[in-house]
Amino acid sequence: MDKSGRKYFTFAEPPDQIVLESGVTFGPITVAYETYGRLAEDKSNVVLVVHAFSGDSHVSCHESGDEEAARPGWWDNMVGPGKGIDTDKYFVICSNILGGCGGTTGPVSINPATGKSYALDFPVVTIADMVHVQKKLLDHLGIEKILTVVGGSVGGMQALQWCVSYPEMVRSAIPLATTLRHSALAIAFNEVARQAIMADPNWNAGNYYEKSYPEMGLAVARMIGHITYLSDDSMRRKFGRNLQDKSDFSFNFDIDFQVESYLRYQGTKFVRRFDANSFLYITKAADYFDLVKEDESLISSLAGAPIKFLVVSFTSDWLYPTYQSKELVRALKKNGLDVSFCEIEADCGHDAFLLPNCRLDNLIAGFLNGVSKHG
Amino acid sequence: MDKSGRKYFTFAEPPDQIVLESGVTFGPITVAYETYGRLAEDKSNVVLVVHAFSGDSHVSCHESGDEEAARPGWWDNMVGPGKGIDTDKYFVICSNILGGCGGTTGPVSINPATGKSYALDFPVVTIADMVHVQKKLLDHLGIEKILTVVGGSVGGMQALQWCVSYPEMVRSAIPLATTLRHSALAIAFNEVARQAIMADPNWNAGNYYEKSYPEMGLAVARMIGHITYLSDDSMRRKFGRNLQDKSDFSFNFDIDFQVESYLRYQGTKFVRRFDANSFLYITKAADYFDLVKEDESLISSLAGAPIKFLVVSFTSDWLYPTYQSKELVRALKKNGLDVSFCEIEADCGHDAFLLPNCRLDNLIAGFLNGVSKHG
Repeated sequence: MDKSGRKYFTFAEPPDQIVLESGVTFGPITVAYETYGRLAEDKSNVVLVVHAFSGDSHVSCHESGDEEAARPGWWDNMVGPGKGIDTDKYFVICSNILGGCGGTTGPVSINPATGKSYALDFPVVTIADMVHVQKKLLDHLGIEKILTVVGGSVGGMQALQWCVSYPEMVRSAIPLATTLRHSALAIAFNEVARQAIMADPNWNAGNYYEKSYPEMGLAVARMIGHITYLSDDSMRRKFGRNLQDKSDFSFNFDIDFQVESYLRYQGTKFVRRFDANSFLYITKAADYFDLVKEDESLISSLAGAPIKFLVVSFTSDWLYPTYQSKELVRALKKNGLDVSFCEIEADCGHDAFLLPNCRLDNLIAGFLNGVSKHG
Repeated sequence: MDKSGRKYFTFAEPPDQIVLESGVTFGPITVAYETYGRLAEDKSNVVLVVHAFSGDSHVSCHESGDEEAARPGWWDNMVGPGKGIDTDKYFVICSNILGGCGGTTGPVSINPATGKSYALDFPVVTIADMVHVQKKLLDHLGIEKILTVVGGSVGGMQALQWCVSYPEMVRSAIPLATTLRHSALAIAFNEVARQAIMADPNWNAGNYYEKSYPEMGLAVARMIGHITYLSDDSMRRKFGRNLQDKSDFSFNFDIDFQVESYLRYQGTKFVRRFDANSFLYITKAADYFDLVKEDESLISSLAGAPIKFLVVSFTSDWLYPTYQSKELVRALKKNGLDVSFCEIEADCGHDAFLLPNCRLDNLIAGFLNGVSKHG
């Protein structure tokens, strides 16, 4: 562990590879992860947080360490002492996903066979592969039971996949703002975003690491994604038709409206921190996610498992709308599972699961408390 | 008129220019237009059809002329003998909008001052400018009264603008699937699409007419737009998670899903028929559209005008949702105007106004009949 709070685990001993869902054998794999709180002696207080599309292992700030450790995490409002996921009680683990660019092996990582970044030689991975790698990390940490696996969006997919892949390890799961299977609409947005990246000549079939970066393409891709995280309502309220630093239209193609300025800013900011190839791989993994294909055998493999679920959706989320959470609830209940479901009134779109929300804090805290005591 | 059915009118006599809303004086302007049916002797049967973003003057096929004339129009199901807008009764005029690429002067047109395409020397135009040019065309045709001006989406904006700019000429208007003012969400999608075009190095600050065309950027822009024309429901029904010509995932970045194939096809097809700079200009005009800015003076200038309105929205249209049509209806009623409103149940999204729909046909036919007899 360095002072940033980030730790690394590499499958360095043989077998240092895993067989991916595609059939490809791949490794070695390094996992970047962070932990918060203290592991109970009986190891009964493990909360595995699984991050969404652009997250990383830094789910919350650390109480000790350097500036890097102290910087805000992506879910600071939820994870910490006395918070919804109370690190005074629970031992929180969060690792960067396989294919990501936050320290875990991904397309930017050095391919030992060539001494250069994998780029598109990195294999296409799935949500199940990401979870497989997280399982390796927990094995390494000597953890055999997870009190709860919790995540939103692509994190919610991982939470569900954990239950399907390793039902014996999971006592409960909290899939937030997510889906059983990626919809045509969600695939469509991902595909257009990928096309925007691949249309950038700097992308160069993925080989840009020692050259110019496909900044324009990635920025457009992020802007597309960002719109899907908001809602019509929140954009009306936040931006409306307000002009940016001007009192009348420019009558050119510069920025006129605040919403344009905001999107360009989001695009530019993202380019500095995210790898364009990781964007391709993670969106593809999300698109492939489908727990009810093949005659629902994946979800029905869970039948009767002693896993408690808390499923949460948000009213204004149009990327993974409430009806998709309801489909999930029905599928789980049909298989005899113990499911609580809550649709939270929120007008900020898909992003709602990441934003401060007392109702969500209380729901999760209460659910964790119940599982912890009676689970 | 050539055998294609397309006619041209150029402001060739002085004054051959118009003053645009930006204050810029611009001309000469050529207008490409087509007509259907026969003008009544008392000129009382004029239906002005105003097209949406990517439309042109070819609203329907012609009964005589060459192959070009006979090809399907963009609103064949609505305009023709015995149809909702019955060309046995009405004289239909449709012209390509200012800034477009269907024959009317736009960025691709030759700038007489340089002998080359205007490109970005073309001035930024507004919906009011488009309507101003249509007015010039009607003057040229000797038409002083319009029975109805009808259009959907950006066409609906023009229909509304007609009422505001030339209330004395308009007896009725049918704005379909449109809005009083472009929302932050709609601006956001347009802005990202523009960024996709401008990110293409072939765009070259608009100067690509004698060079490589910004095909990739325009295709991405079109794909973004296309998603907003559909609905979650229609995409689920039409594509679901069906794979394209394969039985399992490719585990690469080729096309896996039918929805991906469909979008790429739409992008590629569009590139062949549409000018990238026109995309920029027309989306900007839509973004600028706002009839209730400046203390609602534009809409209230209509107060008491003897114009009948038929406002129509579609349940699954999330680009211009029903609540925006209701805002329009309230604003019109507040100013004492005669408004009928109908929300049509349709699960195909914004595109619904263009698709065959008996209910819409009957609504429009009935409204036209009423206006024609009693208007």
